Amino acid sequence: MLSKNVLKYLTSLQQKKYRQEYGAFLVEGAKSVLELLASDFEVEMVVATDKFYKENTRSLEKQPFRVEIATPDELVRAGTLQSNDAGLAVVKTKSNDFLYAEEGEYVLVLDDIRDPGNLGTMIRIADWYGIRKMVCSTTTTDWYNPKVVAASKGSFTRVQGFYTDLGAYFEQISVGNARPIAHRLEIGASGQGSVGNAGPVAPRLEIEASGASVYGTFLEGKNIHQVTFAKTGYIVMGNESNGIGSVVEKFVTDKVTIPRFGEAESLNVGIATAIVLDNWRR
Amino acid sequence: MLSKNVLKYLTSLQQKKYRQEYGAFLVEGAKSVLELLASDFEVEMVVATDKFYKENTRSLEKQPFRVEIATPDELVRAGTLQSNDAGLAVVKTKSNDFLYAEEGEYVLVLDDIRDPGNLGTMIRIADWYGIRKMVCSTTTTDWYNPKVVAASKGSFTRVQGFYTDLGAYFEQISVGNARPIAHRLEIGASGQGSVGNAGPVAPRLEIEASGASVYGTFLEGKNIHQVTFAKTGYIVMGNESNGIGSVVEKFVTDKVTIPRFGEAESLNVGIATAIVLDNWRR
Repeated sequence: MLSKNVLKYLTSLQQKKYRQEYGAFLVEGAKSVLELLASDFEVEMVVATDKFYKENTRSLEKQPFRVEIATPDELVRAGTLQSNDAGLAVVKTKSNDFLYAEEGEYVLVLDDIRDPGNLGTMIRIADWYGIRKMVCSTTTTDWYNPKVVAASKGSFTRVQGFYTDLGAYFEQISVGNARPIAHRLEIGASGQGSVGNAGPVAPRLEIEASGASVYGTFLEGKNIHQVTFAKTGYIVMGNESNGIGSVVEKFVTDKVTIPRFGEAESLNVGIATAIVLDNWRR
Repeated sequence: MLSKNVLKYLTSLQQKKYRQEYGAFLVEGAKSVLELLASDFEVEMVVATDKFYKENTRSLEKQPFRVEIATPDELVRAGTLQSNDAGLAVVKTKSNDFLYAEEGEYVLVLDDIRDPGNLGTMIRIADWYGIRKMVCSTTTTDWYNPKVVAASKGSFTRVQGFYTDLGAYFEQISVGNARPIAHRLEIGASGQGSVGNAGPVAPRLEIEASGASVYGTFLEGKNIHQVTFAKTGYIVMGNESNGIGSVVEKFVTDKVTIPRFGEAESLNVGIATAIVLDNWRR
């Protein structure tokens, strides 16, 4: 049986405020917990039913975390699922590390995605198409929301997220201008510039040309069936109602459109993400 | 204010049993109701807020149906939405008419789709890609479920559904054998066969060759990026957990696969539908 304190701690993690305070989040259900145990996330605690514990003793007992046994009812009370006869885990959140597209790589950028189900679905789709990095506007729903984790179906263990102000981000990596580029991080050593750089030196991003493009879906874009994708790039998906905002639009080098053959007014943003990534991977 | 009887009637339509008994279903929210009023569905009643009524008086007063005024609270109590400050409609269900792919046409076939959100999403995607006909296994969730209608975002007004036993259906239209075909319905006249047909004649389907193919997603299918689609065809999507069942599999002429580039175990069936239809339309 779970103590009052443990139950209180678990339910508190349903709120972003407490996830941030404790630096921890919930992972629920057999499949997600097992994918988690096979990942590099730091697990703090697993709450398992007797049955789930017995079926997965080897994965559970060798690890350096606390294990509690609970009934399915307790799991439902502690978590967000409608039923859970397996277990849940409390996991340390990762640090918000800077991410960008290295040469030959694509990054998925989310401008103000509000629905947790959509974000989780987009993480799953990114994982299917081999995208490992996602950059999210600070207005995008919380990566560690239990609904996001559930909808990602375990893919949150393989795809990294970085939250930032997208305008400043695109400025910093200097994409979207005449010569799209990637970059590497370089700290100016002891106040001195490198040879050939006479200016004052602060920690900054050193820029290299690499041909990164920024793709975004717009009504008036080029038919995505006819787009040839660059080797390195960013694919931006916009808000559920308003699409890509004007700040981010300035950095889009290639506006694309998913052609419509019937009469539906729009497509869900998760669906649109899948279609764009499928066209990119062809 | 809504009378007790009206409220009871409206809430009863949340259940399939009563939708079938009354031959009616609910359409909720401003956008769906307005798309409905522009469609050929027979509307029985509209319940509108004062505001929605005033904004849409012209659409509402010219029509031969009953209009009731209600508060947003009453709309929420009568329907299934979490908020509704516009209106809802009671609409006559359509008859379950036989559908098949005419020459040059594609039909989307659903084998045991259980989740109403998935079905609604698939109707919306079909509508985006210009598919007008869907054939559903009798085990597929009810087309007129309010969650299906809501998730279809108005596309239920443009796409027709036909529920049937899929094994019998594919037998009847004789696809999936060596020479895939379309057909037309022909009733044997006064017990006599047509010239050249000596056997006993019952109402039956007269078969014509037309090159219809049946596509279905399987793990071991051909990479969909390399498939050339036939002019006329059926695209089958299978159950959320188990995919296409063995009865329907026998009729699939072309097994296809959505290639995976990363590690996610699977894609949601709505997402998969969108990717298949996008590849078909290229």
